[in-house]
Amino acid sequence: MTVTATQKVRLLLIGVGNVGRRFLDLLVRKRDTLCDRLGLELTLTGVADTSGVAIRPSGLDAQQVVQLKVEGQGVAAYPRWGQSGVSAFEMVRTTEADLLLEASPANLEDGQPGLSCIEAALSRGMHVVTANKAPLVLAFPRLLDLSRVHGVRLCFDATVAGGLPAVNLGRRDLAAADIHRLEGILNLTTNYILTRMAQDGLSYDEALAQAQAAGHAEADPRLDVEGWDAASKLVILAHSVLDYPATLAEVAVEGITHVSAETLQQAAAEGKRVKPVATAERDGEHYALSVRPTWLEADHPLAQLGPKQMGIVYHTDISGVISAAIVEETPLPTASALLRDVVDIVSSQ
Amino acid sequence: MTVTATQKVRLLLIGVGNVGRRFLDLLVRKRDTLCDRLGLELTLTGVADTSGVAIRPSGLDAQQVVQLKVEGQGVAAYPRWGQSGVSAFEMVRTTEADLLLEASPANLEDGQPGLSCIEAALSRGMHVVTANKAPLVLAFPRLLDLSRVHGVRLCFDATVAGGLPAVNLGRRDLAAADIHRLEGILNLTTNYILTRMAQDGLSYDEALAQAQAAGHAEADPRLDVEGWDAASKLVILAHSVLDYPATLAEVAVEGITHVSAETLQQAAAEGKRVKPVATAERDGEHYALSVRPTWLEADHPLAQLGPKQMGIVYHTDISGVISAAIVEETPLPTASALLRDVVDIVSSQ
Repeated sequence: MTVTATQKVRLLLIGVGNVGRRFLDLLVRKRDTLCDRLGLELTLTGVADTSGVAIRPSGLDAQQVVQLKVEGQGVAAYPRWGQSGVSAFEMVRTTEADLLLEASPANLEDGQPGLSCIEAALSRGMHVVTANKAPLVLAFPRLLDLSRVHGVRLCFDATVAGGLPAVNLGRRDLAAADIHRLEGILNLTTNYILTRMAQDGLSYDEALAQAQAAGHAEADPRLDVEGWDAASKLVILAHSVLDYPATLAEVAVEGITHVSAETLQQAAAEGKRVKPVATAERDGEHYALSVRPTWLEADHPLAQLGPKQMGIVYHTDISGVISAAIVEETPLPTASALLRDVVDIVSSQ
Repeated sequence: MTVTATQKVRLLLIGVGNVGRRFLDLLVRKRDTLCDRLGLELTLTGVADTSGVAIRPSGLDAQQVVQLKVEGQGVAAYPRWGQSGVSAFEMVRTTEADLLLEASPANLEDGQPGLSCIEAALSRGMHVVTANKAPLVLAFPRLLDLSRVHGVRLCFDATVAGGLPAVNLGRRDLAAADIHRLEGILNLTTNYILTRMAQDGLSYDEALAQAQAAGHAEADPRLDVEGWDAASKLVILAHSVLDYPATLAEVAVEGITHVSAETLQQAAAEGKRVKPVATAERDGEHYALSVRPTWLEADHPLAQLGPKQMGIVYHTDISGVISAAIVEETPLPTASALLRDVVDIVSSQ
């Protein structure tokens, strides 16, 4: 890429939780790298959380936003530029920016408020980078059309398998290939639980408690352990990589809550491993989609993944079988996937 | 990507060996996919091999070129449009095209004739996609500068680890990350030999003969088994992914010819595997580069690769540890990496 002058990019961020906060950390930590290596100057002009917004056209101090969150406050408390009672949607609708980052929690009921914010941003000619799965799961074709109509990009590498570029690998590197089978361990919590149960003899409850203590599982882990988080990611891969307009309702979903220590021992005795696998298998013009605990041969690429890993396998017609995996100790790699998409968008302009 | 009208792209191809021929197969096989899915119409306007050239501004029949090679003839025999005694360089210098594909054999002595052809193409404002390592190993900074000066792209995903997007993964998806360690099995022949020796008890000579019979090893396998092929790929990764201007001379290279069955047995007895690993390890402002048979723990991502696999591991500061691998039964995936780069270039215009 040609680095001539510094390119200034104005960002809006919605959501300052685990991922959003680490993205702000990255803005600070990578400021010099982005400028020197890539010729980019990223400026945070607006940020929203449940407390309200902080908007400053000349740029907010990302470190100060993080500090507020560390102290248990919301962004509305940002000195001078913070405002309570203003919604993320209002911020997107009225603030000048080049790119919206959506990192608010996934709401699989109606996708809100992320969905409306993404629509508003695209309609105003902003690029969108999202870590929020729900708007994509519920409205992928509409959002993609909207981005095309307005000539902007919609990127979402951070929605699937954390910091692993699973979406990018499929969407970009396999654009001319046909994928007849896709398999993935797309949810960290369930792989952590089954792997710790199998490797360390923990009970389900013990493994879940440790996953929560390590920050890998939510306080309410149902979306994870019942398989819906992985199913959502599979739907996003189906739309974006397989060009198959899947719905969440058509995914055959089975959680891990009923997997017993005996089952895991029996699998090990047969030289196999039980892993939480999301699968898309071509069947004529369609794909059959499923998420379930799956017995894998020990030499399967996904069988070997440890408790802090996620991975994906693409079985293709012209590019062989390509597998990829990530070791993800914290949500930092997921935040780095947001930065990856930002860099990709602004570098290819 | 916005697909509005069909985008026509004129290609020149140099080299119609294992990879070049399969690329031509892909042009035929993927014609409809490229048109329908990506809005691309790729036209082969010129092709060169050691026999001469065939040039036709309105497009050659890729299938007919393949047929000539299958019959043991060169492209100079192409009816009406073939010419003997004309060099690839002359073709590049005088033929109108949008993109040059360079798939001639690597000549690590002086990079020719590929190097001059790539320089000529970039200088004429053509994008370049190469599967030929030598010009990059010998002149990476100069070629990259040339591409920038002329506002065109230079892509080379096919030069490293066959059809695995190892270069793209590092260059694009880790653009903002720092990589403190990179490990790869970048050469198929040596991994095939060591893996077959260890798994199936073959002698070195038996394993080499089988690699040659299966088309994985050249008749003259010295570049492979003495480590220089992998070292060349490591130099390309250093320049492109690590932003470190390595030379082939600084890579500590050790081949696999002295690895004995006893060594492999001893490793197995200790629960380890011996693999041909290329490594770049950060040391202050520099990287220490090596290619050598390496004892790996059994759970190392590269230890588990089978005889027809290559792989790479990136240890990063912000994106965790990312590994990727490919099963490559034939050179088809390598040819697909050429097509991947072509699609990437013309889709992002």
